[in-house]
Amino acid sequence: MCERTQILGVDRDGGFADYVVVPAAVVWRNDRAKLPPEIACLQEPFGNAVFATSTQDLAGRAIAVLGCGPVGLFTIAIARAFGAGRLLASDHVPFRMELAKKLGADAVVNVDEVDDVPAWFVEQNEGVGLGVVFEMSGALRAIQDAFGIVRHGGNVVLFGIPARPATIDIAESLIFKNLTVSAVNGREIWETWYTTRWLLEHGVVDLRPLITAELPLDSYEEAFALLETGEACKIVLRPNGATP
Amino acid sequence: MCERTQILGVDRDGGFADYVVVPAAVVWRNDRAKLPPEIACLQEPFGNAVFATSTQDLAGRAIAVLGCGPVGLFTIAIARAFGAGRLLASDHVPFRMELAKKLGADAVVNVDEVDDVPAWFVEQNEGVGLGVVFEMSGALRAIQDAFGIVRHGGNVVLFGIPARPATIDIAESLIFKNLTVSAVNGREIWETWYTTRWLLEHGVVDLRPLITAELPLDSYEEAFALLETGEACKIVLRPNGATP
Amino acid sequence: MCERTQILGVDRDGGFADYVVVPAAVVWRNDRAKLPPEIACLQEPFGNAVFATSTQDLAGRAIAVLGCGPVGLFTIAIARAFGAGRLLASDHVPFRMELAKKLGADAVVNVDEVDDVPAWFVEQNEGVGLGVVFEMSGALRAIQDAFGIVRHGGNVVLFGIPARPATIDIAESLIFKNLTVSAVNGREIWETWYTTRWLLEHGVVDLRPLITAELPLDSYEEAFALLETGEACKIVLRPNGATP
Amino acid sequence: MCERTQILGVDRDGGFADYVVVPAAVVWRNDRAKLPPEIACLQEPFGNAVFATSTQDLAGRAIAVLGCGPVGLFTIAIARAFGAGRLLASDHVPFRMELAKKLGADAVVNVDEVDDVPAWFVEQNEGVGLGVVFEMSGALRAIQDAFGIVRHGGNVVLFGIPARPATIDIAESLIFKNLTVSAVNGREIWETWYTTRWLLEHGVVDLRPLITAELPLDSYEEAFALLETGEACKIVLRPNGATP
Repeated sequence: MCERTQILGVDRDGGFADYVVVPAAVVWRNDRAKLPPEIACLQEPFGNAVFATSTQDLAGRAIAVLGCGPVGLFTIAIARAFGAGRLLASDHVPFRMELAKKLGADAVVNVDEVDDVPAWFVEQNEGVGLGVVFEMSGALRAIQDAFGIVRHGGNVVLFGIPARPATIDIAESLIFKNLTVSAVNGREIWETWYTTRWLLEHGVVDLRPLITAELPLDSYEEAFALLETGEACKIVLRPNGATP
Repeated sequence: MCERTQILGVDRDGGFADYVVVPAAVVWRNDRAKLPPEIACLQEPFGNAVFATSTQDLAGRAIAVLGCGPVGLFTIAIARAFGAGRLLASDHVPFRMELAKKLGADAVVNVDEVDDVPAWFVEQNEGVGLGVVFEMSGALRAIQDAFGIVRHGGNVVLFGIPARPATIDIAESLIFKNLTVSAVNGREIWETWYTTRWLLEHGVVDLRPLITAELPLDSYEEAFALLETGEACKIVLRPNGATP
Repeated sequence: MCERTQILGVDRDGGFADYVVVPAAVVWRNDRAKLPPEIACLQEPFGNAVFATSTQDLAGRAIAVLGCGPVGLFTIAIARAFGAGRLLASDHVPFRMELAKKLGADAVVNVDEVDDVPAWFVEQNEGVGLGVVFEMSGALRAIQDAFGIVRHGGNVVLFGIPARPATIDIAESLIFKNLTVSAVNGREIWETWYTTRWLLEHGVVDLRPLITAELPLDSYEEAFALLETGEACKIVLRPNGATP
Repeated sequence: MCERTQILGVDRDGGFADYVVVPAAVVWRNDRAKLPPEIACLQEPFGNAVFATSTQDLAGRAIAVLGCGPVGLFTIAIARAFGAGRLLASDHVPFRMELAKKLGADAVVNVDEVDDVPAWFVEQNEGVGLGVVFEMSGALRAIQDAFGIVRHGGNVVLFGIPARPATIDIAESLIFKNLTVSAVNGREIWETWYTTRWLLEHGVVDLRPLITAELPLDSYEEAFALLETGEACKIVLRPNGATP
């Protein structure tokens, strides 16, 4: 909530610099015996999903996740672990749609293949709107869809960052539906991190299916090329000849 | 939250019809000894303000109310009664601005007389954004202003119904500020009504300053003319020669 | 919350009477296609566990369940489904302890076999008190233990009904630990029932392991004898020759 | 919530020592222009009341405060400022009972003069139990009373520290009434302090009626003598010849 937040890697040098100075007060120690490095290095983006879901009561509710990039997929895994009722998702990349199902989505729609995306969600949910919609893509079309997918009195979580302003029919889309919209960003220091560690160390959420490749750090160019094919999710790079 | 809500006076005949049939299940009985008719008849719109404020924690927080129509003014009275810290409001009609002060606003800005409305609010609040902003006007400009007035991590309540879609910079206005937006409409049956009755019967909130005239029912044309001058708020009409 | 509640089977005739008159307003319809009778008939006590757990945030937290009777076992199943972190339980009947493990408890202690029950729980939780303790047994000793098992700032849910008043060191056990104690009873009409139906119809919680026998209604004496052995949990009785 | 909390004045030297070393991290700066010293020095115990009330929703609810020592009186002042509906209190010292009325209590009972204290509260509240009961005295009798004063589904806040264990009929007093009990102690760093400062600097709560005398520091013996008469609440001692 700090109005003067500086993000490592955005507002000052981050993981792509040769050397980084990090304030001691923001260093988080991991217990290697409980959290292997290939999982520990996923905590930063996973924490975004932990924070986004922490604003909502998920147990027993019908949940939609729009956008199956890494944080969307993390959200699916958390929602499943926390007792989501029906869990539906959308994307347009078949590789990601398969990962969504593997992580617990009951059904996933390809938004390029249906005309009326909200209607698909409502139909899959026995004709009623969904309780919570997580918008994780930042696509303007998905933001519009979110308000059509959610039920009256439901919750929309906005996480994906759109490139341009959106035009929203506030009367019909929000007020007459009595919606609550939570726009989330970042994490809570340190509440989110305690939950994150707990979920990973105790296996409540298993992130391994999202690691689609592990390579030596020197092969970083190969890693980026893999990501550009759309046939990858998270790639672990191991420095100095480290092995799993 | 009901998706098939029918509103008396909107979806079926209401108070302007000669005769009205009302389902017994939605009749609310008032105790005349505790709640005089001129206050009892204000419960309907006052209930909107009770519901709008019930979604927020007001005690000790800095609060803005945009738009000083009757429901905006009710909101000011409730916020003051519930322990609001600094309480600021806006409108463009001097008569309403005076009522806002009488009901407890610390300061009221005329939006036609300042260039940068959000800057006025922040300045009045010692340089920081406000904790809760109630948008009660439905003006597109006020909806934009609301996101500039609220502090990081604060709450915006959307109640005023805009006539056209709004263009919103979701990234800058909502996500990077970690806002929660509650769009509210109607009331909760019967939770809101119990609170409404309690507040009025026990004098926690005094609505009398909002009754700017009391007339016999036959003088309804005079009442509407008064409202059109902008120099009136709520006018009580007494049927059948009833007297206070 | 009603102060004049009448419970079917307690305050007026219930399931053991030859004929029962039930007010139409409290009849709950089940959809046989989605909820087979042997699960549907477990909804009444299962609803107690749904209500007891609905007062708490379970996801990612360390949870203790004291007492593995049917409602305690239901609570274990719900806590596991809703993302409990470490999930520990206690009882003194080996048959029930086995069921607790089958439903998801990480470890179960026999209270007759350890001297210091709170110490066992804390040790199993890496040396720290547990976030939420559900006291489901009604045993005075377990109520005392609950306040020793919970961490500072944690939650104790009291559901089991003790036969006699308890002596509690309010200063040491409650105030200096900043505890919140929720004493729960019954259900919320109808919120609890909607959640109950959803959890069962969608398989979020599977109650089958708790059905330890299915018999024709005529064999009710055999059923009661089984319960008295302590080697049974819930027994389904089928009337009129009905078959699964 | 810290399990290793050290309280200044309890676990290490406090305000009665000649010299005190205070960790820089726990020093709170006051703005003398906004908060005069005689109010600033009341923040420590006032913060207890702010924290105790922060756990409850007070607006429009019927509230009881048992015990009108300084923190009980602070609680009355806060409840009134935050929109309490009916506000009732108890004590056995007439001087304190008068202060309670001055700070906003609607009625105050002398517990030495009525046989059935809970019955008095319920009668004053039109025959129904109260929504929130703050037990601020630590008297075992008042703790028992608290469970009889609160309505079904209500909240009891335990703050007063009893000298001996209490015997509580958990079945009748807690479980069948669906109560929530919050045992509170200390404050939240720094959330409580921000609220405390805001309430005092902006005059939401006025603590002056509780300052029953102001004396030079040298007259501390006179101050203690005044407290022992029971005819004093808070006494401000001014060091080094300071004047208001």
